[in-house]
Amino acid sequence: MSHNTFGHLFRFTTWGESHGPALGVVVDGCPPGIEISAAIIQRDLDRRRPGQSRFTTQRREDDAVRILSGTFEDGQTGTLKTTGTPISLLIENTDQRSKDYSEIRDKFRPGHADFTYQQKYGIRDYKGSGRASARETAARVAAGAVARLVVPNVAIRASLVQIGPQRIDYTRFDWAEVDNNPFFCADPVAAKQWEPYLDGIRKAGNSVGAVIEVVAEGVPPGWGAPIYGKLSADLAAAMMSINAVKAVEIGAGFEAAALTGTDNADEMRAGNAGPHFLSNHAGGILGGISNGDPVVVRFAVKPTSSILTPRQTVTTANEDAEVVTKGRHDPCVGIRAVPIGEAMMALVLADHFLRHRGQTGRDAGIGF
Amino acid sequence: MSHNTFGHLFRFTTWGESHGPALGVVVDGCPPGIEISAAIIQRDLDRRRPGQSRFTTQRREDDAVRILSGTFEDGQTGTLKTTGTPISLLIENTDQRSKDYSEIRDKFRPGHADFTYQQKYGIRDYKGSGRASARETAARVAAGAVARLVVPNVAIRASLVQIGPQRIDYTRFDWAEVDNNPFFCADPVAAKQWEPYLDGIRKAGNSVGAVIEVVAEGVPPGWGAPIYGKLSADLAAAMMSINAVKAVEIGAGFEAAALTGTDNADEMRAGNAGPHFLSNHAGGILGGISNGDPVVVRFAVKPTSSILTPRQTVTTANEDAEVVTKGRHDPCVGIRAVPIGEAMMALVLADHFLRHRGQTGRDAGIGF
Amino acid sequence: MSHNTFGHLFRFTTWGESHGPALGVVVDGCPPGIEISAAIIQRDLDRRRPGQSRFTTQRREDDAVRILSGTFEDGQTGTLKTTGTPISLLIENTDQRSKDYSEIRDKFRPGHADFTYQQKYGIRDYKGSGRASARETAARVAAGAVARLVVPNVAIRASLVQIGPQRIDYTRFDWAEVDNNPFFCADPVAAKQWEPYLDGIRKAGNSVGAVIEVVAEGVPPGWGAPIYGKLSADLAAAMMSINAVKAVEIGAGFEAAALTGTDNADEMRAGNAGPHFLSNHAGGILGGISNGDPVVVRFAVKPTSSILTPRQTVTTANEDAEVVTKGRHDPCVGIRAVPIGEAMMALVLADHFLRHRGQTGRDAGIGF
Amino acid sequence: MSHNTFGHLFRFTTWGESHGPALGVVVDGCPPGIEISAAIIQRDLDRRRPGQSRFTTQRREDDAVRILSGTFEDGQTGTLKTTGTPISLLIENTDQRSKDYSEIRDKFRPGHADFTYQQKYGIRDYKGSGRASARETAARVAAGAVARLVVPNVAIRASLVQIGPQRIDYTRFDWAEVDNNPFFCADPVAAKQWEPYLDGIRKAGNSVGAVIEVVAEGVPPGWGAPIYGKLSADLAAAMMSINAVKAVEIGAGFEAAALTGTDNADEMRAGNAGPHFLSNHAGGILGGISNGDPVVVRFAVKPTSSILTPRQTVTTANEDAEVVTKGRHDPCVGIRAVPIGEAMMALVLADHFLRHRGQTGRDAGIGF
Repeated sequence: MSHNTFGHLFRFTTWGESHGPALGVVVDGCPPGIEISAAIIQRDLDRRRPGQSRFTTQRREDDAVRILSGTFEDGQTGTLKTTGTPISLLIENTDQRSKDYSEIRDKFRPGHADFTYQQKYGIRDYKGSGRASARETAARVAAGAVARLVVPNVAIRASLVQIGPQRIDYTRFDWAEVDNNPFFCADPVAAKQWEPYLDGIRKAGNSVGAVIEVVAEGVPPGWGAPIYGKLSADLAAAMMSINAVKAVEIGAGFEAAALTGTDNADEMRAGNAGPHFLSNHAGGILGGISNGDPVVVRFAVKPTSSILTPRQTVTTANEDAEVVTKGRHDPCVGIRAVPIGEAMMALVLADHFLRHRGQTGRDAGIGF
Repeated sequence: MSHNTFGHLFRFTTWGESHGPALGVVVDGCPPGIEISAAIIQRDLDRRRPGQSRFTTQRREDDAVRILSGTFEDGQTGTLKTTGTPISLLIENTDQRSKDYSEIRDKFRPGHADFTYQQKYGIRDYKGSGRASARETAARVAAGAVARLVVPNVAIRASLVQIGPQRIDYTRFDWAEVDNNPFFCADPVAAKQWEPYLDGIRKAGNSVGAVIEVVAEGVPPGWGAPIYGKLSADLAAAMMSINAVKAVEIGAGFEAAALTGTDNADEMRAGNAGPHFLSNHAGGILGGISNGDPVVVRFAVKPTSSILTPRQTVTTANEDAEVVTKGRHDPCVGIRAVPIGEAMMALVLADHFLRHRGQTGRDAGIGF
Repeated sequence: MSHNTFGHLFRFTTWGESHGPALGVVVDGCPPGIEISAAIIQRDLDRRRPGQSRFTTQRREDDAVRILSGTFEDGQTGTLKTTGTPISLLIENTDQRSKDYSEIRDKFRPGHADFTYQQKYGIRDYKGSGRASARETAARVAAGAVARLVVPNVAIRASLVQIGPQRIDYTRFDWAEVDNNPFFCADPVAAKQWEPYLDGIRKAGNSVGAVIEVVAEGVPPGWGAPIYGKLSADLAAAMMSINAVKAVEIGAGFEAAALTGTDNADEMRAGNAGPHFLSNHAGGILGGISNGDPVVVRFAVKPTSSILTPRQTVTTANEDAEVVTKGRHDPCVGIRAVPIGEAMMALVLADHFLRHRGQTGRDAGIGF
Repeated sequence: MSHNTFGHLFRFTTWGESHGPALGVVVDGCPPGIEISAAIIQRDLDRRRPGQSRFTTQRREDDAVRILSGTFEDGQTGTLKTTGTPISLLIENTDQRSKDYSEIRDKFRPGHADFTYQQKYGIRDYKGSGRASARETAARVAAGAVARLVVPNVAIRASLVQIGPQRIDYTRFDWAEVDNNPFFCADPVAAKQWEPYLDGIRKAGNSVGAVIEVVAEGVPPGWGAPIYGKLSADLAAAMMSINAVKAVEIGAGFEAAALTGTDNADEMRAGNAGPHFLSNHAGGILGGISNGDPVVVRFAVKPTSSILTPRQTVTTANEDAEVVTKGRHDPCVGIRAVPIGEAMMALVLADHFLRHRGQTGRDAGIGF
C-alpha cells in the first residue's frame, strides 16, 4: 500500500478529484472467470451515494459506474466474466456546482487537508477539496463490490454503532435493521433517537463524529500472515485510509487494555467441525491470522470539518481570518462510511485470500 | 508492507524465531553518510531488553547487536558511516532454556497464535512460540534506532498511559519521568500506584493489557501522502503489526467520534513562523499528511495470553484439554511495547521523509 | 513492477483491451507543479499512432488523449499543472471493426499469446487480441510523455537500427533524420533501402522483426541503485515488457562477451567538469548506476505473428487446423516500437530520478 | 524488485559486502512444509564457489551456509522443514586478505562501479569492491537453492555457450557434460579448446566476456502474467541484475529480429497430452506467459574490469592516473555466472508459480 494503490495480489488504484470530469479505479489481479456486471457494482455504490436522506450531503450524483475493461462475455452462458486483466471502472462527476470558491481558495479550513496539501505540494485543487474529497470513496466502494465477488462465502456487513456520544445498545443489534433507517444502524431504537439529535446538529450548522463496526463472517482460519503481513495491520491501514478516520480497533480493541489475561483470551472447545472459540475478544484474528471466528473491526470518524459555523483560521498569505464552509456537506460523514468500511473489509480479505492461496496452495487452513 | 518487510524507500525485513540461534533485521534504503555505531543501536535495544525489572519476563538476553554490513569507516573522521547499502543487524539468542515443550506442542494456548499458525501453515515452531514470539520486536527496535538517525530533528518519545483499567493523569505528564520508573510512564504518581497493582496481577498468575502513547515532535508539514499513502494509515499498520496490539488511534482518536465539528477542528492563527494550530485533536495529521504539530499515536496492547492460570483449550487432535503456560512471561507486555512503539514511529517517519523528498525534492513543506 | 503496474515512486498502471470502449493509464507519484497539457501527451501518441504509412497497420485510431485527473489550472499563470495526485489518461477506441472473429476465437495463432492466455485464465478476449494487443502501448506512450516532463534535461531519442537482417550503417547515424522517413531511422540511406524490402514482406503476407536503439543523453551520474534496483535491470524489464520484444542489451551488450577487459572497460580522463570516459561500452551504466554518459539500450522485436500466410495450428478443442490471420496488422511492429521504447526509457528514468532523490537528497551525483 | 529485494510472493533480500564479516539473504514467502537442509543449499553454493580451477579467482572461501531461521524439525519424520516464515541464510567471509587498498581507494577502476558508487553515495567501501563485489551472488545462489525446492518438477540447468568470440557447437550440446569441465560447458569439444584460450587471456593479465544459456524444463503453461508481470520481463531483470551482465535474450532473442513471421512463429500440432509446438523460437514464453515448452534465456557477461593490464583512469581528486588491479580476480566471470543464472531462473519461477496459484487457484494452466 502506497500512493493511490492498495493491496498486493488483489490490488486497486483510484484516481480523480471531486470537481474533475470523472473519478475511477483500476482493479488489478482479480481472478478470472468470475461473473460480474455493472449492476452488481452499482448496488454497492448506491448505498454510498449522497443525497438519499436529509442526513447526508444534498449533492446529487448518480454515481453510475461503467466497466471499461477486464471483462468478457462468456460465449456459452452469455454472462459477463472477469478475464484476469485489469478492470477499469469509471464514474462521471455530474453535479459539480459552479460557484465561487474564493472563500476556500485563499483560506485553510480548520480540520481539513487544505493546509497540508498546500504545504506538501505547493499547489492545491481547492474545488470541492479536489483529491481530498470523500468522493474518492466511491471508487473504493466500486472496487469493494468486485472484491466481494472474490470471496463469495464471506458475508461482510457494517453498522453505525455510535453517533456523537450516543452508542447503540448491542442487545438490540439486528443486521436486518441496517437498511431500515437512514443511519445503516443495526439498533432500530438508537436509529430512531438519532434522527432528532442529528437534525439538531445539522440545523446548528455543526457536525458530529461516529463509530462504524464492520463484521466479516465466513472467513476461514489461515488468512493473513505474521509480522508485516498481518490481517489486522492491513485492516487498520485500510480503515485509517478512509477520509476522516482517526481510530481503528479489532475485536475488544481498546477495551482489551483494561482486561486481564483470564478474561481476554478466548477459550476453546473441541467440536465435530474442529475447535471453536467460546468468545471473540480477538475479533477473529490471532497473530495476524484469521481464526475462523467473525472478523470484527471498528473505526471512528471525526466530525466533518466543513461546517457553517465560523471558525478562526489563516489565509494562504498567513493572515488571520475567519472561515465559513458553505456547500452541501454531510452533518455526519460516518453514515456513508458504513458501506465504505464494508468495501475496505472486502478488499483486504480478497487480497489476503489470494496471498494465502499463493503461498500455501490452499483456500483456507488445513482443517481438522 | 507485506510478508516480513515494512516500508517503501526506507524499508526493513526482520527474521528469526524465539529459540533459533539468532534473529535479525536488514535495513535497506538508508541514506548514505550517516554516522552510526552498534552502541547507538544498543541503547534502544537495552530499553526493550527483558529482565530489567520484576514486571517483565525474567528471560536473560543480552540482545547484543552486531552490524554485519552497510557501513564503512570514514577515512577522514574515523567514524563509522552508512554507505547506502543494506545494513544487516544480528542479535544472538543466548538464553533459550532447554525444557519440556509438550504442554504447548500439542495444545493451543487461548489468545495465542498457536492455533492460527497451525491452521495456516500445517507446521508450527512451538518452541518459545517461534516466529510469533515478541522477540521479533528486538529486530524492529534495532531498525528503529537506525531510523531515528535518518530523522535527527524529530524527537520521538513514548509513555505507558494506561495499565489495565488505570489511566494516567495527563496534568502530571512529564517526559522527564519516563525513565525513572519500571513502566516507562510519564506520570510518576500513576507509576507508583501501578507497582502493587501489577505485583498482584503477576502473583495471581494473570496478566493485563495497556495503552501506550507515542509522540513525535519536530515533524515538518508535508510528510505523508493522500489516500493509500497516508501517514496515519501507515502508522496504524505499523502499530497494529506489534505483537498483541488490538487498537490504534491518532490524536483525539475514538474520542473524536463524540465531538462536534466546532470542538474537534483545530483552529489556526497566523504567526511569524507561519500559521499554527490552537489545539491538536488531529494528532498532527490532516488528510494523511503531517501538519507540523506533534504526531500523536496511541495503541492498546491486550493482556499476555501466556498465563499461569489454567484455561480451557483444545489439543491439536481436536480434544478438549486444559492448558497452563509456564515459562518466563511478561505480566504486561505493554511495558516493553513502549520502546517498540517509538521504533515503529521512527521507521514510518524515516520512510515518509524519503518518500516526500523523492516526490517533491523538498525535505519539508513549502514553508511560509 | 508486477501486474499492470510499473515503477516505484513514479509509477503507472495501464488498463484496457483492443476492442473495449477505451484504454488508459493512471500515472501516480508525479511531482507537483509541472506544466502539462493534453497536447504535449498527444504529440508522443501521434508518433505511435497507427495508419501513418503503408508500413503500419491500417487501423484508424485518433488516439486522442483526455486528462481526467491530477492537474489544476494555476491561478497566476493560467497554465495546467500537475498537483502530485494521480493523473488519469483516457484514450477511446474508435475503430473497432465489427467482424467475424470465429477464425481466432477457436484457433490459437502460432507465435501469439492466444494459447497462453487461454491456459492461464481459462477465458480469453479474442477480439483484436484483447489485452495482448499492442494497443496497450498507447497507454505507455501517454505515461511516457508525462515522464519526460519529470526529467526535462534528459534528451530521449530512438531509432530503428535493424529491420529483418538489414542493419543500419552507424557512420551515417543522424538523429535529425529520424522523422524524415516512415521507419524512425537515423540512417537515411538504410531507410530508403528498407522501403522496397518491407513492401516485399508485406505483399507476401509475411512480417519481419527489428532492432530499436534508445539513447538518453543528459542523465547525470548517480541514478539507479545496486543489486535489485539496477537501472540496467529496470530498463531490461521495461523493454522486455513491450509486446513482441525478445532481447535487450545495454551498451556493447552481447558484443561485450567477445571483448577482452582491455578493450571493453571504458578508460577515464580528468577534465574541468570532472572525469569523463573515453568510450561508452558500458552504455552509460556501471554497477547498475548511471555514469553520466548516454544511456544506450537496444531491444529486438520479433516478427508480427499475425500474418496472412497459412500456418499449422491447433483448435481450442485440441484438433489440428490451419490459421490465416486477416485483419489490419503491422508488417513490422518494430517501427511503432520506436516511440514506445522512448517512453519506457523516460518512465524508468523518471522513477529512478525520484528514487535517487529520495534516498540521497540530491538530484544527481555528488559532482566534482 | 527494488533496493536489495527481488520477487513478490516468493521474495528474497540480500546483504553484505566482500570484506565484511559475512553476507547473507533472507528468503521470505516460502511455502511451508518443504523439506530442506543446509546440505541442499551448500551443493549449489559449492558450484559457484571460487578457487575450484585455475580459471576462477584464487580467493579461498568455504562459503559454508548456516540456516538461522524459518525451519523446524518435523516431529514425525525428524527432517527439517520450512515453516512459511523467513529463512535467513548466513555465509561468513573467511578469506579477506589484509592488504593495501590505496591503489583502488583513490582511483576509479575503468569498467567498474567505483565511480558510480562514489558519485551516488559520496562514500564507498573500496575493500574488495564492497557491495559491488560478485560475492553478493553467493547469497542469490543460496536463495536459488531454496527456490528450486518450491518448483521441484522444474529442471533448471545452464551452460556456458560462448567465451570471448568462441561459441559452442549446439550439435554437440549435452547436459551431461556440464560438470565434466571447468567451464560448465555442455559442449566438451569447445570446453577443451577454451582451456588454452583462457590460459592465454589470464597470463596476459587480461579478461574476457561470455554468454550463458539457462534452460528450465517442466514449466507448465500459465506461469507469468501480461504486461508488467511478464515472465520474460522478470527474467530479463533477474539476469541483468547479475554483476557484469549487459544483455539478455529469450528464445531466438536478437536473432528473431532477422526472421520473418513464417519462420519465427512456432507452429502447433494436436497431441494426446494437448497441443505442442513444432519449434521453440519463443523460448517457452508467449505474451509473457509460459507455454509449456522449455524456458530458454541467454545472457552476456562483460569481461572482468579488474585486470592486471594498466589502464588510464582518474583519481577521486579528478587527476589523470593509471591503474592496475592486483588481487585475485576471475579471468572470466562468466564461468561462475552459470550457477548464478540457474539460481535467478529458479527464483523467478518460484515467485511466478506462487503468483499464478494466488490469482487462479491452479498450479498450472487449465490443461486439456
